[in-house]
Amino acid sequence: MNCEVVAIGTELLLGQVVDTNSSWIGEQLALAGIDSHFQTKVGDNLERIVAVLRLALERSDAVICCGGLGPTQDDITRDAIAAVMGVELVRDPALVEAIRARFGARGREMPANNLRQAELPRGASALPVQPGTAPGLRCPVGDKVVYAVPGVPWEMKEMVSRCVLPELRQRAGITGVIASRTLRTWGLSESKLAEVLDDEIRRLDDTGEATIAFLASGWEGLKVRITAKGDDEGSVAAVLDAEEARIRQLVGDVVFGVDDDTMESVVLEALRRRSATLGLAESLTGGLIGARISAVPGCSDVFRGGIVAYDRRVKLEVLGCPDVGAVSEEMVRAMAQGACRVLGADIGLAVTGVAGPDPHDGQEPGTVWVGLARGERTEARLLHLPFDRERTRQFTCITALDLLRRRLRDDGI
Amino acid sequence: MNCEVVAIGTELLLGQVVDTNSSWIGEQLALAGIDSHFQTKVGDNLERIVAVLRLALERSDAVICCGGLGPTQDDITRDAIAAVMGVELVRDPALVEAIRARFGARGREMPANNLRQAELPRGASALPVQPGTAPGLRCPVGDKVVYAVPGVPWEMKEMVSRCVLPELRQRAGITGVIASRTLRTWGLSESKLAEVLDDEIRRLDDTGEATIAFLASGWEGLKVRITAKGDDEGSVAAVLDAEEARIRQLVGDVVFGVDDDTMESVVLEALRRRSATLGLAESLTGGLIGARISAVPGCSDVFRGGIVAYDRRVKLEVLGCPDVGAVSEEMVRAMAQGACRVLGADIGLAVTGVAGPDPHDGQEPGTVWVGLARGERTEARLLHLPFDRERTRQFTCITALDLLRRRLRDDGI
Repeated sequence: MNCEVVAIGTELLLGQVVDTNSSWIGEQLALAGIDSHFQTKVGDNLERIVAVLRLALERSDAVICCGGLGPTQDDITRDAIAAVMGVELVRDPALVEAIRARFGARGREMPANNLRQAELPRGASALPVQPGTAPGLRCPVGDKVVYAVPGVPWEMKEMVSRCVLPELRQRAGITGVIASRTLRTWGLSESKLAEVLDDEIRRLDDTGEATIAFLASGWEGLKVRITAKGDDEGSVAAVLDAEEARIRQLVGDVVFGVDDDTMESVVLEALRRRSATLGLAESLTGGLIGARISAVPGCSDVFRGGIVAYDRRVKLEVLGCPDVGAVSEEMVRAMAQGACRVLGADIGLAVTGVAGPDPHDGQEPGTVWVGLARGERTEARLLHLPFDRERTRQFTCITALDLLRRRLRDDGI
Repeated sequence: MNCEVVAIGTELLLGQVVDTNSSWIGEQLALAGIDSHFQTKVGDNLERIVAVLRLALERSDAVICCGGLGPTQDDITRDAIAAVMGVELVRDPALVEAIRARFGARGREMPANNLRQAELPRGASALPVQPGTAPGLRCPVGDKVVYAVPGVPWEMKEMVSRCVLPELRQRAGITGVIASRTLRTWGLSESKLAEVLDDEIRRLDDTGEATIAFLASGWEGLKVRITAKGDDEGSVAAVLDAEEARIRQLVGDVVFGVDDDTMESVVLEALRRRSATLGLAESLTGGLIGARISAVPGCSDVFRGGIVAYDRRVKLEVLGCPDVGAVSEEMVRAMAQGACRVLGADIGLAVTGVAGPDPHDGQEPGTVWVGLARGERTEARLLHLPFDRERTRQFTCITALDLLRRRLRDDGI
């Protein structure tokens, strides 16, 4: 079974909107065990959409079209599919009522334009999952099928995951379960991880139990995704559990979380478990660590706040640091201790360094000190980050939070 | 003249990498006056790449292929184009030397694999612009042409802007100059801007002098792009100048910058002109404003730093605020004054509010106070932002910086 993706919208060709929908659908198809060999972007032009759909149906078993289901004159995906099927559009009274009800629920009248969204090519049916006002379509063409879903990402994702993928899997006779689990790591490069896991990847190639893929994700860390197939959810979960344990044993404590965990959420959870509060002292990052921490809802129980000591005088006057080099071990230790004291926090995390592009205080760009103070204990670590300004700042954030994560785990601050 | 884009790489189909290259090329083609009707992603499979290229050459005048020019066995764009041309690959001694010299310049030996990159389909030529180790290709097919450029974005962009686009424009007989200018705005919605500019857009439709497009860009603001064509750079610049002046007159002071200006860079420039220093007091944003300000290299001359007063006690103990509601006018005024005093800054900018998802202190999510203190004067503004947590925080940032921008301009703080 293979399935093409067709993204419809002139704004995609003009680069006004980046087509992330096709990428997401491609990933989901792969995870579902369905091949996708071609993905095409085409503008809001009837003749060209029809040509793309005809070609897609020649070379693939199924097509997912994304976009062009809105209520305006530009939205012609329905018309194009009807032309490919050689049928006319008919208005479905049940869909009219469903759309009217959605507007009603928000206290609004349905505009006349939206009646277009209740039209279906004869022989097509509306998908049972409809998160917004646009219904999705299931359109049989001979023994093949065209699905049409809206371009609004959250509506598209709901329809594809809950309806289109299960139907495609059923068509393909894929009865088993495919599931994946993502281990979030920080501390080893992609090539180093691949080296450490080389024997295990070979073993999996031989046994076919599972596959491993690496996804570098900037300051979100490096993701290791395990994918396994099996007859039922229980057996797949068991394979994933066993494989996760094996990988953790091989790569050690660089794994900081699983699936939706982030470095921030993991650190906040660890702080909560120990009822410890956190204060920050940030120089080169300018508030980036605090911004990430506070992106997590409910962080206020353990996050006190921070001092953005960008200017030297703030380090001295607000944090009470000594008059030493701004990028030095002594400075970062004093900043971390100052964060505890000034913010009334149990733990102080501090960073100071040179983000670049120019050297500062006689230090090269990428020279960064991380400091951690907790009670009587203060420690400092020196980093050399060979990146541009933005990545130096981002990698400083995750590296500092990772140091805190390790200490919270090691010795129960 | 129309030109298709073909992005080559299995990782694109699998969604491991989002294809932003095609979007960028599509935008550049549009700006250069060249139509692009189809953009296709295809994996690293010879037969399928050949099929996609043949089809593209049937329906378009030119093709830009992106990706698959690296030194590994997966990189088969050269082979696919040779198959489409019906010729063999030949090694170009001059290219071998050029690639060897690039490695040499970095003190490295050229690996044997990279010899593949010196191969060209017979009849093709290497592009004169070569920013990395991969040469780009110009491959004539009958009276049409296939360009192949690397998938590495900066290499691709150099080759496309400096070589491919000028050649395509020449082929198309487009002799004039096309240029665009982007006005960066904050303060009016897209529909409101469109309403205010409605008559002007109609006028431009009639005269054909220029076109206007809107690009919503989240907390980067709403962009208004003016595009004009003319015989030479001078006359196009004159049209853009005149149109910019007309739009500024119609929309007023929501225009905060032009082209690469950002709200942060504009505010920093204005502070510099007045030799005024800035201190921040951030609650719901947790450091996001400081992170943005400090993303700009060289900000340290006017940016002192900030207090991230996430916890109530930090507001009281560090900023010296009174014991009033955390989300209140009195609190935000005291925070702004505290930022000046504690950080030794001329201007204090403060934000406090409810990012959500839950209410806080009896206030609904999206309730945000912005405070600005400068010398004796302190002012406060109340916002109601109907967004999710992340966008509420982001829009708080740009709205607070925009208030500061207006005051710096109005009355020379």
